[in-house]
Amino acid sequence: MKRIAVVLAFASASAFAVEPVPYPEGYRAWTHVKSMLIQQGHPLYDAFGGIHHLYANAKAMRGYRTGKFPAGSVIVFDLLEAKSADGAVQEGARKVVGVMHRDAKKWQDTGGWGFEGFKGDSKTERAVDANAATACYGCHTQKKEGGFVFSGYRQ
Amino acid sequence: MKRIAVVLAFASASAFAVEPVPYPEGYRAWTHVKSMLIQQGHPLYDAFGGIHHLYANAKAMRGYRTGKFPAGSVIVFDLLEAKSADGAVQEGARKVVGVMHRDAKKWQDTGGWGFEGFKGDSKTERAVDANAATACYGCHTQKKEGGFVFSGYRQ
Repeated sequence: MKRIAVVLAFASASAFAVEPVPYPEGYRAWTHVKSMLIQQGHPLYDAFGGIHHLYANAKAMRGYRTGKFPAGSVIVFDLLEAKSADGAVQEGARKVVGVMHRDAKKWQDTGGWGFEGFKGDSKTERAVDANAATACYGCHTQKKEGGFVFSGYRQ
Repeated sequence: MKRIAVVLAFASASAFAVEPVPYPEGYRAWTHVKSMLIQQGHPLYDAFGGIHHLYANAKAMRGYRTGKFPAGSVIVFDLLEAKSADGAVQEGARKVVGVMHRDAKKWQDTGGWGFEGFKGDSKTERAVDANAATACYGCHTQKKEGGFVFSGYRQ
């Protein structure tokens, strides 16, 4: 009996575990999609205040072009502090590296996308972890028609 | 006598002609170096007001890493209008695509760099043309120690 209980507990834990999203190695050399500055007074300031840049790997670029993001598409939301002085806004320290990683099987509960945030310049400190459904997917469902992606490629 | 005069006139014209800087085809897929927003009140607002992004081809990336930009290095200064509303600054229409193209022989009078600006989304309308020495190089000489390049690669 004891052995069966252990096996069931293990099976149950793995059924609910969310597959971790890998750190997007080398994303700074990927294609720059677009940028935006979010300032005080914007409804998303607390979460996303600063300058952000979006980057896409080659598969995600195919997704922006065709509207269908293939497995392996990765989009990075790179959020930096915005330092304002003397009429210029410059990039400051990195706040978070947000990631969307496409795999319809691994992340079927969140629209086929894995969501994660890596704190500052860390490749291991996770800001989202098991909370993707509420912390990310909740808003991204608004964009179901666009494959759950908010951004579009700016020429 | 007439033939000699014509030959001399031609030789003189070509000695002073500045080699045109080619349009940087495909630069939007190059590495994004850094970005900045220049607002009203900044001393460079008239020339460079808006959001600009810098892009580098592979050779220019070697230059950012080593401090020495090899022949064929191309750096793009992509200037877009900045549209400010509701606490966010978004990218607007393209104002100019500024280019620095490295070739110590072709552009020896301007530090070994060819300078050009392509207006808006045009690949042919030139904003600088024969005025690189005064319109660009005059300021870039401040950065002679850094190979005449103002920007540094932001990690």
